[in-house]
Order: sequence, then C-alpha cells, then structure tokens
Amino acid sequence: MLTLDKVYHAAFKLKEVIRPTDLIYAPKINPEADVYLKTENLQITGSFKVRGAYYKMSTLTEEEKAHGVIACSAGNHAQGVALAAQRSGIKAVICLPDGAPISKVEATRSYGAEICLVDGVYDDAYNKALQLRDEYGYTFIHPFNDEDVIAGQGTIGLELLDQLDGIDAVVVPIGGGGLISGVAFTMKSLKPDIEIYGVQAAGAPSMLTSIKDGKIEHLDHVSTIADGIAVKEPGSNTFELCRKYLDDIVTVTDDEISTAILTLIEQHKLISEGAGAVPVAAVMFNKIPVKGKKVVCLVSGGNIDVTILSRVIKRGLITSGRTCQLNIALLDKPGQLKGVSQIIADLGGNVISVHHERASEGEDINGCYLRIELETRNYEHIAEIRKALTDAGYCIE
Amino acid sequence: MLTLDKVYHAAFKLKEVIRPTDLIYAPKINPEADVYLKTENLQITGSFKVRGAYYKMSTLTEEEKAHGVIACSAGNHAQGVALAAQRSGIKAVICLPDGAPISKVEATRSYGAEICLVDGVYDDAYNKALQLRDEYGYTFIHPFNDEDVIAGQGTIGLELLDQLDGIDAVVVPIGGGGLISGVAFTMKSLKPDIEIYGVQAAGAPSMLTSIKDGKIEHLDHVSTIADGIAVKEPGSNTFELCRKYLDDIVTVTDDEISTAILTLIEQHKLISEGAGAVPVAAVMFNKIPVKGKKVVCLVSGGNIDVTILSRVIKRGLITSGRTCQLNIALLDKPGQLKGVSQIIADLGGNVISVHHERASEGEDINGCYLRIELETRNYEHIAEIRKALTDAGYCIE
Repeated sequence: MLTLDKVYHAAFKLKEVIRPTDLIYAPKINPEADVYLKTENLQITGSFKVRGAYYKMSTLTEEEKAHGVIACSAGNHAQGVALAAQRSGIKAVICLPDGAPISKVEATRSYGAEICLVDGVYDDAYNKALQLRDEYGYTFIHPFNDEDVIAGQGTIGLELLDQLDGIDAVVVPIGGGGLISGVAFTMKSLKPDIEIYGVQAAGAPSMLTSIKDGKIEHLDHVSTIADGIAVKEPGSNTFELCRKYLDDIVTVTDDEISTAILTLIEQHKLISEGAGAVPVAAVMFNKIPVKGKKVVCLVSGGNIDVTILSRVIKRGLITSGRTCQLNIALLDKPGQLKGVSQIIADLGGNVISVHHERASEGEDINGCYLRIELETRNYEHIAEIRKALTDAGYCIE
Repeated sequence: MLTLDKVYHAAFKLKEVIRPTDLIYAPKINPEADVYLKTENLQITGSFKVRGAYYKMSTLTEEEKAHGVIACSAGNHAQGVALAAQRSGIKAVICLPDGAPISKVEATRSYGAEICLVDGVYDDAYNKALQLRDEYGYTFIHPFNDEDVIAGQGTIGLELLDQLDGIDAVVVPIGGGGLISGVAFTMKSLKPDIEIYGVQAAGAPSMLTSIKDGKIEHLDHVSTIADGIAVKEPGSNTFELCRKYLDDIVTVTDDEISTAILTLIEQHKLISEGAGAVPVAAVMFNKIPVKGKKVVCLVSGGNIDVTILSRVIKRGLITSGRTCQLNIALLDKPGQLKGVSQIIADLGGNVISVHHERASEGEDINGCYLRIELETRNYEHIAEIRKALTDAGYCIE
C-alpha cells in the first residue's frame, strides 16, 4: 500500500543519487498568478523518472538484485532505470522498439544498461521484456503502475513543500499517471487544501477519458509531440489514485505545447520536452483556474530530440509571427526580385531564404515564382510588409 | 578601490533581488575533469549583469537616485540595468543602436526602462548616452569598467566558494572583463590557489591582445556569434585586474561555441548564449589544463535570439555528423531516385529533404542532380552511407 512512510523512506534513499532540483519563479507565464517552475528537466538523466526507478530497486531483495532488472521504454524511463541500476550495482536490460531515436538509445547505453532492440513497436518490446523476465528471472520495473515507483515520484511533493510556503496549486503532466499519483498522494496527505491538476496532451487523453467513464479505457491511437505522455491506458493503481486525489484534468494541443516550449526557452533558458511543457501550456492558456494563486508547474523532463526541438522552435516562430513565408507571382522580366527585396528591406524584414523559379506547366508561360522566407517582428509587421508589396503591384498568393 | 568588503557588501545588498543560481554537476563535458556549471543563465534577466548594475545603484546618493541612471547596451547589460533600476525605484534610460534585435529591446522595455533608439552603431548610442547624461544629470552605469559593478559581479565568486569545496579552477568568459575581474579578485583574495582562466571568442580577443602587448589595445573589427563578449577594448580597471589575477586567457572559435551550446542543450537542458558557452567550449576542447581538476564553468547568460539558436543547432548538428547534405549526380533515367533512397533507408539514414533538378547549362545534358539532406548518427554513419552509394555507382560530389 502507498503510505507517507514509503514516500519519506524514498526521499531518504534518493538523497544518495538525485539532485533536489531548483524551483524557479516565473511570473510572466501567467500575469494573473504567481507561477513557479519545478525543474525536473534539470534532474540527472533529464527527467524525474530516476526517482521511482532508484527507489524501486532499493526495495529489492539481495536475490532479486543479483538477477538484475528489466524495463521496456524508448524514453525517460529507460534512462532512469539504467542510471538507477548503475548506481545500485544491478544489471539492467532495456528493451526498446528498433525505431527508437538513436539519441535516446545512446543515452541509455551510456548509463551502462544492456540494450535489447526489438523488431516492431512498443508493445512488441514490452512482450519481449516480459519474456526475458520469465526466462532469466529479472525483476520488471514498471514505468508507472507500481507503488514503490509512485512513492519515488512522490518525493517531488515533499521537496515542493520544503521549497515554497503557501502553494495553492500544483500542475502535473499525466501519461500513465505515476508522477501525478505520487505528487498528489503526498501533498494532499500533508496539506489537503492544495489543488492538484493533471494535464494531458489533447491527442492522448487516456486518464481523462478513463476518469470520465469511471473505468480504465484503452485508446487505440495516440498522437502528440509530447511523446513522454503518449500513453494509451492508465494503470490500475494510478487510475484509482488519480480518481481519488485530483481536482481536475485538462488537455492542451500540440501548438500550445510548442508555444510553451518556446516560452521556457526564451524566458527561462530551459529546455523542456513536450511532456514537461504541458503544465506550462495549461497555465499560459488558462485551462486551469489559477487567478490569484501560487501555482507550481512541474516541468517533468527535458529529453527532447534536437531535430524535433528545431521544428518546435520553427513552429513557435511561425505561430508567434516571427517568421513568415511569402509566395509572390512575378512577371518574368528584369528588376522584379530587386523591387521586392527593396520593399522588404525598407520595412526591416530580414530575408532568410529566397527561391526563384520559372513557372511550371499550367501556369502563365511568362510568369515566375518567388518564395521568400522572412524574419519578422510580429503579425502586424507581416501585415505591413504584405500590404506594401500588394500596394506596389505584386501579387501575393 | 576594489576590496573584499565591497564584494561582501554587494552580496548583502543583492540578497534582495537576485537568485543564488544553481551549480550543476556536468561530468561529461570533459571526462578527464570534474566539471560543474554555474548557471547564471538562470539568473533573473537571463544573465549575471543584474548583479553589478543593482549593486552600483545601491551606492548612489539620494540625489543621484532622484536623477536616474542611463546606460548604453543592446544586450544583457541593458536588461540588468533596467531591472535593477525598477527594483531600486530609479528611473532608467537605455540607449540602443536602432538595429538592435527586437527581442532584446522588448525585454528591456518590459522591465520598465525608457528606450532611446539611436541611429547608427553601438558607438553612436554610447555618445548619445553621454550626451543625455550631461544634459539631464543621469548617472552613467558602465557595463564593466566600474569598481562597484565589478564588486557586484564578484559576488558570484563568494557563491561558488559556498557551493563547492575544493574548486581547482574557474573558467570565465571575457568581453570587457568586468565579470572575470570581480570573480578573480574575490576568489584569489580568499583562496589564492584557485586558478582563474579567461575565455574570449577568437574573433574578439581584445583582452588577450592587450595583456600580451602589456597595454590596452583597440581592435578595429570584432566578429563572433558570442555577441555578449564582442568588445573592442578592455577597460582600464579590468585590464589591470586581469593582468594581476588571471592564470591564462584562451580563445575558442564560433564552431566550438556552437558545439558547446548544443551540448548544454542536449546534456543539461540549458539554453546558453554564445558568450555563456565559451567556458564550456574551452573545457570541452581542452584549451585549458583541466585534467584531474575540479573545474567550474561560469555560464554567464542565456539571452540568445531563437532565430540564431535555430542556426546554431543546425550548425552543431552538421559539425557533429548528425545531419549531412549529399549532392549526387544522376543519369536522367527512371529509378535513380528510388535506388538512392533505398540505400539510405537500408542504412538507417533519415531523409529530411530532397531536391531533384535537371542539369543546368555547362553540365552533361543527360544528367540531373539530387540534393538530399539526411539525419545521421555520426561521421562514421555518413561515411558508411557515402561508401554504399559510391559502391552502387552513384557519383557524389
């Protein structure tokens, strides 16, 4: 059974390995609230997952430890288990689907785990892990539906109560529900008035759907840039704990998540992965009643692939009007490119790329196309440039 | 005169406004050393500059405070002065060259400063600031060549001694030299054995050149992505302090800085600006004798424009072999694109973009070109793909 004793015991055990991550004041996230960021993205391994994994391993018998542990994950849990095992002197095997990003595979391997790449998707890797467990006697470390793992994640709740007086609400991502179950159980047990809100990606609302329906629901398909919380089905323990302790669950879209990631970069110099940014997105976009409250957003992790990060930044720049692309139909005669460039330069637009092409079939034989990518200040600036070009007789598509 | 008393006094005053920023263990930066990051990028305003600015203002007379302060900067100093003035209840005017990035102008304005955009470059804005000072009686807050400002920055040295026992070396960026002067003076005064290394951008080595020549030198031209330390000439105070206290000054290239920025993102989930990343670059690329030492890299700030960040990430991915572009000459006959795609897919390369064009004048009339951008694992992976393509008869440029 999950008890406060277990959480305190986990906190004691975790002192050996984790960093007590900083709580950073972030008043601009929502000007109507006092917002703080709990920076578990700065935790070792780049996410909170090492807490639950390490505590779980500390509870194993000597015989279990001697056999080693196994887990199935392509993400933060893999790295958490790998590092926890390394620090505990236990062998770890991690099963991953063979399409897992190279960067995550390499990070997991760097913590000393044995990697088992499995043909197929997550479910195939999961089945392989269970098979190896039966074959070799490994202990399976579940990513969320385990009371010791939940107790480990709950230590974040203890840290928060130590770090800040008068917390009104804590906002936490939900994938399988292990993190929020631990945090909610711990904080509500000690301070029942603190509100706990869960946030899911709009494309993966498995806990929300399950709680609405009053029973565990399985989603056939999940899709979100927040891959860390793209979970199809909550656990039995986490479902019960969430049903009992949460004040509400809300969802955020991929565009809202991208904007939150960009905001954390620009205003707080922090890299967050999609899952880590959902609490910030929920508070920024007023999905939660935070007005006048002291609110903690739990930024759960920062393990985002840089190529995805690049795309998120690009998307965030577009949705905030700081880059734009113009397709301009030109007459194929000298001086047209210069004319367009002049107008853009005069208005302070910064040209990033130019693509200039003769018309292809089906278009005016004398025409050609100019595709220009620009750095701009905001939407007003874009409108100003478009208007000046249109006024000068250029035809923008 | 700069004294330890002044630094202690600054630390006392600064308690009211600054965050004591976290020191984060970063053993992978250089496997032969114990590396720590002092995260002043997580300081309020995104850089250390608020320390010196706030302490300087605290030393002003009531009459000076009533007149207000003025500064000239397009970067971190502007934001530091603006916030420090706001917290001190003092009026601040910031002169910036009119080409300053919009994001930095807006950030400065958001801290309540009056913005004065000046036609021209930095020197024009500087002269305007002096003119306004004379006209309105503002106190000019120098970005580095001021003992109170230097004492404020020196408080980082006190924090480091509190945060970590047994520091062997501290590595600090140098622009005008205010930060390193404060840190070096403070730490060497208390623990003379600690080594202090300065790092400049290879494209802006003004302090290095000056110290080598034994007199202050003025560089006519500076060029680096680390705009925060692109300073043409050290100050008279900072020059003397650096000459007295530093163990060495080294330089790093823009490519090394880009790699360091990317490393901080991937391994530590931290956004650093170019200037903030130079100590990490110096330690990563063994510019400094760190073997076996406990070394602190002072990550001075994180105010990097996201459009520049995007380019830096791209550059970092290229220099670490994780993206590459192949230009392949094809015969203009069916099946060629498929053949190339097949080889790349078989070897696990991930195609990002394809550009396929008929030959232009001067080339084989039957030829066409394929430009493919790929995500790859590393240089070995690129070489493997190139070899497979060449072996299959494709001609890579």
